[in-house]
Formats: sequence, C-alpha cells, structure tokens
Amino acid sequence: MNTFGQIFRITSFGESHGRGIGVVVDGCPAGLALDLNAIQEDLERRRPGQSRITTQRKEPDQFEILSGTVDNVTTGAPIACMVWNKDQRSKDYSHIEQKFRPSHADYTYFKKYGLRDHRGGGRSSARETIARVIGGGIAKQLLALKFGIQIDAWVAAVGTVEMERYWDKAMELTTENAKIVRCPDEEKADAMVAAIEAARKAGDSLGGIVACRASNVPVGLGEPIYGKLHALLGAAMLGINAVKGFEIGSGFNGARMKGSDHNDQFYTDDEGRIRTRTNYSGGVQGGISNGENIEFRVAFKPTSTLMRDQDSVDAEGKSTVVKGKGRHDPCVVPRAVPIVEAMAALVLADLYLLNLGRQV
Amino acid sequence: MNTFGQIFRITSFGESHGRGIGVVVDGCPAGLALDLNAIQEDLERRRPGQSRITTQRKEPDQFEILSGTVDNVTTGAPIACMVWNKDQRSKDYSHIEQKFRPSHADYTYFKKYGLRDHRGGGRSSARETIARVIGGGIAKQLLALKFGIQIDAWVAAVGTVEMERYWDKAMELTTENAKIVRCPDEEKADAMVAAIEAARKAGDSLGGIVACRASNVPVGLGEPIYGKLHALLGAAMLGINAVKGFEIGSGFNGARMKGSDHNDQFYTDDEGRIRTRTNYSGGVQGGISNGENIEFRVAFKPTSTLMRDQDSVDAEGKSTVVKGKGRHDPCVVPRAVPIVEAMAALVLADLYLLNLGRQV
Amino acid sequence: MNTFGQIFRITSFGESHGRGIGVVVDGCPAGLALDLNAIQEDLERRRPGQSRITTQRKEPDQFEILSGTVDNVTTGAPIACMVWNKDQRSKDYSHIEQKFRPSHADYTYFKKYGLRDHRGGGRSSARETIARVIGGGIAKQLLALKFGIQIDAWVAAVGTVEMERYWDKAMELTTENAKIVRCPDEEKADAMVAAIEAARKAGDSLGGIVACRASNVPVGLGEPIYGKLHALLGAAMLGINAVKGFEIGSGFNGARMKGSDHNDQFYTDDEGRIRTRTNYSGGVQGGISNGENIEFRVAFKPTSTLMRDQDSVDAEGKSTVVKGKGRHDPCVVPRAVPIVEAMAALVLADLYLLNLGRQV
Amino acid sequence: MNTFGQIFRITSFGESHGRGIGVVVDGCPAGLALDLNAIQEDLERRRPGQSRITTQRKEPDQFEILSGTVDNVTTGAPIACMVWNKDQRSKDYSHIEQKFRPSHADYTYFKKYGLRDHRGGGRSSARETIARVIGGGIAKQLLALKFGIQIDAWVAAVGTVEMERYWDKAMELTTENAKIVRCPDEEKADAMVAAIEAARKAGDSLGGIVACRASNVPVGLGEPIYGKLHALLGAAMLGINAVKGFEIGSGFNGARMKGSDHNDQFYTDDEGRIRTRTNYSGGVQGGISNGENIEFRVAFKPTSTLMRDQDSVDAEGKSTVVKGKGRHDPCVVPRAVPIVEAMAALVLADLYLLNLGRQV
Repeated sequence: MNTFGQIFRITSFGESHGRGIGVVVDGCPAGLALDLNAIQEDLERRRPGQSRITTQRKEPDQFEILSGTVDNVTTGAPIACMVWNKDQRSKDYSHIEQKFRPSHADYTYFKKYGLRDHRGGGRSSARETIARVIGGGIAKQLLALKFGIQIDAWVAAVGTVEMERYWDKAMELTTENAKIVRCPDEEKADAMVAAIEAARKAGDSLGGIVACRASNVPVGLGEPIYGKLHALLGAAMLGINAVKGFEIGSGFNGARMKGSDHNDQFYTDDEGRIRTRTNYSGGVQGGISNGENIEFRVAFKPTSTLMRDQDSVDAEGKSTVVKGKGRHDPCVVPRAVPIVEAMAALVLADLYLLNLGRQV
Repeated sequence: MNTFGQIFRITSFGESHGRGIGVVVDGCPAGLALDLNAIQEDLERRRPGQSRITTQRKEPDQFEILSGTVDNVTTGAPIACMVWNKDQRSKDYSHIEQKFRPSHADYTYFKKYGLRDHRGGGRSSARETIARVIGGGIAKQLLALKFGIQIDAWVAAVGTVEMERYWDKAMELTTENAKIVRCPDEEKADAMVAAIEAARKAGDSLGGIVACRASNVPVGLGEPIYGKLHALLGAAMLGINAVKGFEIGSGFNGARMKGSDHNDQFYTDDEGRIRTRTNYSGGVQGGISNGENIEFRVAFKPTSTLMRDQDSVDAEGKSTVVKGKGRHDPCVVPRAVPIVEAMAALVLADLYLLNLGRQV
Repeated sequence: MNTFGQIFRITSFGESHGRGIGVVVDGCPAGLALDLNAIQEDLERRRPGQSRITTQRKEPDQFEILSGTVDNVTTGAPIACMVWNKDQRSKDYSHIEQKFRPSHADYTYFKKYGLRDHRGGGRSSARETIARVIGGGIAKQLLALKFGIQIDAWVAAVGTVEMERYWDKAMELTTENAKIVRCPDEEKADAMVAAIEAARKAGDSLGGIVACRASNVPVGLGEPIYGKLHALLGAAMLGINAVKGFEIGSGFNGARMKGSDHNDQFYTDDEGRIRTRTNYSGGVQGGISNGENIEFRVAFKPTSTLMRDQDSVDAEGKSTVVKGKGRHDPCVVPRAVPIVEAMAALVLADLYLLNLGRQV
Repeated sequence: MNTFGQIFRITSFGESHGRGIGVVVDGCPAGLALDLNAIQEDLERRRPGQSRITTQRKEPDQFEILSGTVDNVTTGAPIACMVWNKDQRSKDYSHIEQKFRPSHADYTYFKKYGLRDHRGGGRSSARETIARVIGGGIAKQLLALKFGIQIDAWVAAVGTVEMERYWDKAMELTTENAKIVRCPDEEKADAMVAAIEAARKAGDSLGGIVACRASNVPVGLGEPIYGKLHALLGAAMLGINAVKGFEIGSGFNGARMKGSDHNDQFYTDDEGRIRTRTNYSGGVQGGISNGENIEFRVAFKPTSTLMRDQDSVDAEGKSTVVKGKGRHDPCVVPRAVPIVEAMAALVLADLYLLNLGRQV
C-alpha cells in the first residue's frame, strides 16, 4: 500500500506526469518547529538536473505545506505537503505507450491493474520518492531534537568502482566530484564520475551501492519479533526504486567470517556506557539498537532506461524495439543518497514512538 | 510486534524455556484441507538434533492444532498451533543470568524491557521460528493449491565454501552430506560439512547463505509503493535470527553490472506467455511479481554462542568472561532452510489475498 | 489516527481555516470510471449555505482530483482529492483564542497536544468531513457497480420531533421542507424546519437522529470477531463530529423485547433466496451481512456553538464568558446525511475487499 | 479479524466445543506484576453456571498462562493464556447441524465460509469472550497501576425493567439478587431476577442494557479523527455478541435536548483542575477524554436460543423447525458485565500507549 509506518507514518500520492507528488505525514508529535530549508535542501539533493552527472530535466521541486502546522510548528494534525509538477514532457513517453520497457514496471503494473499510466512510469516513477524525502526530512528533525541522531548516507560504489568501508569517519565531501557523486573518497569519486560519464556516452547505465550510518541512536529501538530494526530498515530500503539488496553491519561478508572474529565484545567505556569493541552487528542486536552506530548498505541495479535499442514486446506480445527518449540518469545512486537517509529516518522515528511505554 | 502479515497473518508467542511455542494463523481461507504431515516434516527439518552437524538437543517438536479446523479442514477461524517444550535445561543458562553474551540480544532486551528472561534467550531464541514454520507450512499448502507455487530453499554457502548460482536446476539432495547440510552440490556439501565439524571442534562457529526460489508465482503479487514484493520478502528474511543481509535477483552483484547486461529482455514464448530471457530481476519488477521464478539470497552471521571464553560485561558493566554451555549449532544455516521457505510462503500468501480486488 | 479502513482506506488532512481539506483514497480497484458529478452532489448536500436552515457561510466546496486517475478512470494508484478553502473568516474566531468553548474539543486538544489551532476548531472542525464525503463517494460508486448497493440516509428526528421508522419505504423528498431538512415525512419535515428556525432565533441549537439503510448488500460482509460489520459501522458513525450514539436494527428498543418477538425467522422466497420475515437484526447476524437491508440509526447531540453567553474558563483556568460569533448551524443533522452515507460506503467497500478470498 | 487494538492488542482463538479458548496479549509493557486472582475473578463473573439465573453449564474456566511472564511479571513478550474446554456436550448441537437457528450466526457463517462449525456456534459462541476478559483483565491492571483508573459496569436494564441513571454513585451490590443480576438498585434487581425467571419458564428470553463508567481517566486519550475514544469504545462494545446499540454520555436522549441544556460548562475546581459541571459529553470531547468519568451504555438483544419451537430453514432452504436444546441463558446481560469492562479496559490501555509521544 501507499502508507509506510505504524505511528509516525507517511501516505504518498501522485504521479510523475500528473499534478504533482504529495505526502501526508501522520503521527508527528505536536510542537516540532520545522526547519523548512533543511527539508528543501534534501529535495535539492534528490532533484534531477542538479549536476552534470544527473538527468538534465529541470524540476525545481519546491515543496509547500498544505496542513498540519501553524507558523511552521506541528500541531499534531496530519502534515500534508506537495510538490507540483512543472517540467513534464509527457510526449517523451508516447513512444512507449504500447511497449513494455525491459526491467521497468510497465508489464507488471499492466497485468496487476489491467491498465497502465505510461507517462513517465506513472506511479512507479522515482519521482514518487519526493514524498519520502519530505516525510523523512520531518522525521530527521524529530530525531535530532529528541536524541541528536544524525543520519548520513554516501555513495560507496558506482559500478565496479568501490570505496573502502568508511563507517567511522566524518562525512566530508571536499572536491567537486566528491560533491556531485556524494562519495567522500576523492580518488574514487573522480573514478565514479568518469564511469558515469562513460556510461552516458555509451547510452548505457550503471548501478552502485549507498552506505548509510545513523549515530547517537539510543539503545532499545526495534520491536521483536517481526518488527526488528534492521528488518524494517531493509523493507524501507528495498522499497526504493531499483534497490536489489540490503545488508546491515557485516552483511554478506559476515556470512564468511568465523564467530570468534565476528562477535562484538562488550566493554564499559570511560563514561560508564556499555559499548562494543567492534560493530559487525551494525548497531543492532536481536533486532534492537544497541547504542552503536547503525550501519547498512543498499545495492542499486543499473538504470533500466537506456539510450540505445533494446528488444522487447508490446502489449499484444509482439516483438518490438524500445529506445529511451527523454532525460534520464545513467546512474541513480548519487540522487538516491537523500532517499536512503529519509527512509532510515522514517523507520527510526516510528520505532522511537513505538518504544515509548515498553516498561511500566 | 509479534504479528506478521496483513490478511494472512501469524501471531507468535512462547519462549524457548517456557511452556512451549505457539502460533495463531489468521486469515487463512476456509475449506483448505491441511496435510499435517507436510507441516511436521518442515518442523523436522528445523528441529535441533536432526543430524550430526546440528545441536544435540533432542526436541521432538511435535505440533498440535488447538483451533480453527474441523477434521483438519480450515473453517476460516484462527488456527492456533502449539509445540510444547520438552527438553529444556534451564540450568544450562544459569551461568549467564547476570552476563551479556556478545552479539546476542541479552543486552538490548535488558535495556528495552528493564528485565530479561535469560533462559535460552527467552523470546529471542531461534526456537520462536517454530511458529513461522507452522504458519508458513499452512501458507505453502494454500499457495500450492491455488497456483501450484513451489518454494525451495537450500544452503548456498557455509563460511567461505560457496556453491555456484543454481537458480534453474531441480532441487535434489542426493548424498548424505548434501541432505544434512541441505546443499545440492555434492562436493561443496562435503566441504561444508567438514567446515562445520572443524568449527565445532575449535569451539568456533560459521555463518552462511541460504538461497531460495519460488516457482509458478502468478504475475501481479506485490503492492506499490511500500508493499513491494521484495521489500516484504526482505523484511521477512531479515526478521529471522542471525540474518544480516538480503538480496533479490542480481542483488549486490547487480550493482556492479551495466544496464545493457542487466536488463531482462521480454519475449513471447511458444505458449504465448510474456517472459524474460534473463532473470536478473529475480522475478520482481517494480515490486510486483512478473511470472518468472522469484530468486533471493539470505546472509546469516556465524552463531554467536561459542564454546570458548569470550570477554564481556555483566549487568553492572563489570568485566567478565562468557563461555557457551549447553548444546548449540556451530552453524545455523542448514536448519534455517525451512524457516526461509516458511517466511517466503507467508509473504506470498498475504500478497495473494491482498491482490484480490485490484481491478473492478 | 487520520486513516480509516484496512484495504479500501482514506487518509484525511487539512483544517477548516488552512489551505483546504484533502483526502487520499488508497486501495480502490483499478478501472472504475468515476462519476465526478455524483461526488460533487454529495458535497453540495454537505456544504454550508445550501439552504435557509444551515449556516450562511458560502463555501462552494468544489473538489479536484490530484492523482490516481487517467481520464477519470482509477488506475490503482492512490486518489488524492482536494477542496481548497475559500470563505474562511479567521477573525471570527479571534475572540475564543484563549477560551475553551463548552462541549467543543478546544480543551481536550489543548491538553493532548500542548497547543491549539483555534481558527474554526482547526482539525476538529466538521469541515474535515469533506474528506469522508469524497472518499465515501468513490466507495459508493464501487459498491453500486459491483452489487448495485444503494445507500440512503435521512433525518429521522430533530430535537423532539421524530418520525416513525421508515426502513422499507422508498426515499422520496417531495416538499421544499422535506428537501432541506432531508426528512421524507412531510408533516414532520415542516415541524423540524420550524423547530430549527425557533432554535436559531433563540440563539440555541438542536440535535437529532439520522437513519440509514443500505440495500442490495450481498451476504457475507463483516469479519469475526473484532471486525463485525456493525462494529465497524458504529466506529465509523461515532467518529463523525457530534455523534453520541449508534444502534443497528432494533437497537436500544430491542433490549426491551422478548426473544420470541425479536428473532428474525428464516424462510425461502419465491426466487429461492433465504430471507428473514422481520429484520430486527438490521441486516447483520453474527457480525456478517445476511442479505437483508442494513439499517441503523445515529444520534447527534445539539450543536455546541450557541449565539448566547455561556460560562466557561480560559487557558489559565479563569472564569470567562463565551458567545458564538461567525456563522453556525443551529442543527447539523440535515448536513450530516451525506456524511453518514459516505462512512457507511467506506465500511462496506473495505469489507467487500476483505471478504475476497475467505474460501479457497 | 481476530486481533483487537493497535499497540496493546489481543489476538483471540478457539471455539466453544474445540480444545479451548485462548488469547495472545501483545504490547503490554514489561514489569507489570500480574494479580492472577483478579483476572480469575472476572472470569468467574463471566462463566456459565455461576448463579440460578444463568445457564447451568458447569465450566470452571480456569485460565493458565502459556508465555510472556516470569514469576507472573510481564517481560514484554506476548502473553498467551488459555482456558481449556471441559464440559462441552457437542451432541446437544447435533439437532441443528443442518438447520439455521433464527437470529444466530449459522446462516451468515455458512455463506461466508462455505462451511460451518455447528457445535455450540463454533467461533461465534459467546465463549470466545473469555479471551477478552483475560486480555481486558491485564489491561485493567496496567490502567490501575499507571493512573488509578477504575472501570465498573452494571446491569441498567433487563427487558422493560430499567433503573435510573446512576453515574455518580459508588458501585455496591448489597442483596443476593443485586449480586447475581449485577444491578445496584435493590428493587429493580428483584424485578429483573423475576423477569428472567419468568422468561426461562416460558422458554423465552430477554435483552437488556449494561452501563459502564471509567473513572480517573487522564485528559488526552483518544485519537482524532478516526480513532476517537468513543468510536473505539463503540466498536469494542458492538463487537460483543448480541449487542445492538451503544451510546456515550447523553446518547440518544441527548439528540432530543437543546444545546443550552446539553453543553457542559467548564469551571475550575478547588484543586485548580478544569472540570465540567455536567457530563452530557460522557467524559469525551472531540473524541478525546476530558478527565471526567467516561460513561456509556450498551444495548443487548434478547438471547436468540429459545426453548420453544421456531420456524426456520435448513441448509437447502427447506422449511424446518428449530428448538433450543442444551443449557442457555435466558438473559445474557448479567454475564456481559465483565466483558463490557474488559473491552473498555482494552480500548483505554491501547489509547494510553498511543498517546505517548503526542508532544515533542
């Protein structure tokens, strides 16, 4: 369904080529003074046309609040926000009205619903993620206010260019390439940008990996048995367009380790806090946050739209050829960074509210 | 929370060292004639003591139905099932009553709830997965009856011993080692068993990877935007004890591919069905099943309980040493196979019921 | 929360004196060709200023669709609709900014949220019911298409003027007074209009009862145990502003009857359908529709806003006097009629979708 | 479905003539020391055979806890409880195996599920309310501990014998008849008992009204818009077998009052608390508790099972005659008292947990 979360929850609506994209944020505590600029900045990091390595569609993606605040302070009422669509070129999609683009959602939506909104992928467009970035932006501010939680994501891999694990460093983007590709390793950032530009020239596309870290998370978030913190994070991330994999802490590498290497030893630090010496658990044990940084990685497949001919079929099952038109990202992972952060914030805000009242 | 699913849903209860483990299955259609033996067989594949590479605890894990059927046919009422505990040795756990075992849920449960049921991990014990295997067993039978869906999981890796991708082959376990480790590659199965036995002797443990395939899945299962099929599968798998990663189709490898290699071309087969030539999508496009096999992989960390000394702290934060007693699996992945299948079945059964009524 | 329903569900947002009132309808099957005029007509029946016995605020309450349709046909995507606010006079409310109006939600919202949107009651305003009328209007069309379900509500009582039970008659409003007060009994309608006008002149207000009937409902809607049809209907009605009571079938009168009079005898009609000779059950037995007309009644308290001085307290607990300003209904029940119908439609549409798949 | 509540929630299972009735209570805070006797006492007030005016079936209804506690203290894990069936006489029901009893759920269950568990009504039996009494018993203890909330229900009417409104008096049952019929008015209690005995002799049955009051409820419980306190209470009560109506505060009588009489004036009491001089609101304004006593009434229809011949049809639609056998209550309302209290406690406990975190 189009609602995410149990108490702090968002309901998303809108299509890429309709009136706009909207979100209703329900369950946000009253009295939160919203920093609208911070939310808009996250939208800027998500929007197309922001740099030379993203699609050149120009969408300002300015959001407005329709309800739920007085003087930008939340009242406890549902907060509806909207980004009106501006720069859609529906005609860019008329060529695929009767065709199924490979590895897109065209075919499955058509079969599920008996019809299809072909303009820009309709509801399956990544433009829907605007709703998540706004909702997550509000969640981030709640988490920062209550606990000082900080959520940072970055690009850990583009195609075969992959940086080292980076969990404990400050998130700094120093060079131009580091900034546009959102990778803190300067050399790797250069290589990533080069790879993306090469893919664009070839009419091809690349995937990649986004890493994310949440710090200052209190102990106790996450609900056994089916509401484990990393299970909800996984669902949140796998629900982002183009995501094919999720791992927390040691992840798939951890499956290759011995227990004697993998176990995170407890110790008591100078301030009397119980900590772990390593963090292969990724900040989660038994599905519940243990106070260490929450660390996870998200795998994105290469963009499905290619600027070259691809064999496919049409709605009647006849062979046809599809070629991308319009303006598309050869690699979505740089723009996915704020989406990953937003979804992480939504999960943590919801689990924070669920965790109230767990003890008499 | 302890309920999983929206329409076809299970509610799990019970602890490893209490009266037993139970499950309430709600939303199962009426008129399903249950094959109890098939469910019991799945429990046999899950239970401890089943082979020389698993823990030697002897638990028969015989289940009984408490409600919801007449002559083993479902009536539409909630189906409650129970496995009574038999072979618990709570004293095996008295030595850790005041200690936090590394990479276990001891510390996080204690902080979340203010108290802790230390016997066998209480609620965080893998024994809870009995509830899932029973619920999933009923779901499997519903899916088989309605669509002929077949769900098979197997062990794809133990520690560093990893078999090739295997998606399109029939699931056959021919040798003794293949059977007990649940890996269809005979040579790899031998190596896996050897690795597990070596780990046991060293008082150490191993992780691994379980692969799973669902075939004959109809097109259309999965709900945009936040109820994507692979997002729900991911949440289901990451909710299993010791799981650190999930990937569908190409997964993390897909992040390294080019779009021109990764896209799954559509074609129409001899029977007029629209198919894809490759299946990097893993049977899911846009969050909705496309009729190809659903293929995913699940990463398990090495067992946390080790038969050797480990540094840790106690409830007061003081340094202490923990050493496993009792009977534990040096590697849980062979026993995890039916659990992975069960959770997959629960997700598919729920999405089947949710998908009814998507068109007028 | 602000979401109603499980599968066919609405999420409501907006305040009486903010940007407008909106609703997101999720779970509506794809392929439903919407009759927008029918929905607008329900909004006309709800809107203020429609007749001489309602508030004289002039709000056109024109709705627009923001998402979820192509050429007014539903696509399966969430349908967002909006009515923009036009004729708010926030200054009409400045006099009560620091005061708690008796029997309003001012005090409880203030205590719950720590702040209060005093303009027009903010979120607690009956203007929110626009969201329900739109959502219910879509549900009505789904129910009419699938089963020919017809839902009619009318005013059964205004203050002490009460008409006879009327369940089996066609809903016809013949005279001017019958039309504006929505009571099919011409004489009673005259008396009701007179009572409302007298209350207005006295600066006082009246309550009343709305009766509602749904016909052509198939057997089988309603979910044991906690999702009984009349329990969900009751929750839906009691969630409407000013409602203090709900009864199905014989209701409170039924409590005074003998079983031998109250039991609805089964018989088989000429078409071979199993029917009941009486309908004290109100169309629901064991929480499930039995194919007879669903009949229920809803009690509304008198409007809380009075055009006369009332003693009260302010936010600091000091004595004060409150007097209504602005434009208010001396009796809300005529305008409540389409709201009752809408909520009934939402419940039935949701239960229809939930009832799919109850048998293998 | 068979789950009630959002955070504090119960899942019910079991049939009247199967193995027993069970309940899983999820979301109860950890650290609550349960008074098992108090829960058992509520079960005693519910059980059949407790007095000469109830059915003479002898069911001890002893409950046992299967999970979720250590030394009767809740651990945060789901609390499963069970009452095993003892004194079922399934043969008492063989005569109705193929018949639909008037005003029972036989026909609707049969049509909904395609089959029917005829023994004792199967799932639709009032025996299911054991699950609610246990769950509500735990909720009561949580509410008492946190706020000193006290919930008292009593019989306000049996058939046409109705006592005066009684909201502000202490709940005392002084005479034998007052105790068994649970009506605090001694004279009315005598008349009620006489009426029930007369109905029994005539092979007939009676309905009645249960009134309920919750005191010491804090301000702020209840969620706008669709989770209003009285809407959830209404759904809870209407979900009890045989209930046909619900009213809060002034209820249906309030619909006949003028606003100037009905409005509850605010004042500040000697302790500085804001109170209302009257309580026509029934303790709820805008769907949120205002700190006054919560007062509501529940209408029960007369028992459907009669010890006399009634015309009906069988599963093939042919005319037949049905006559009650077995042991049934001529009037259920005395036994419904603890059920009403339990459902009220479940609603309040859930709303208490939902209300945490409504302000930053």
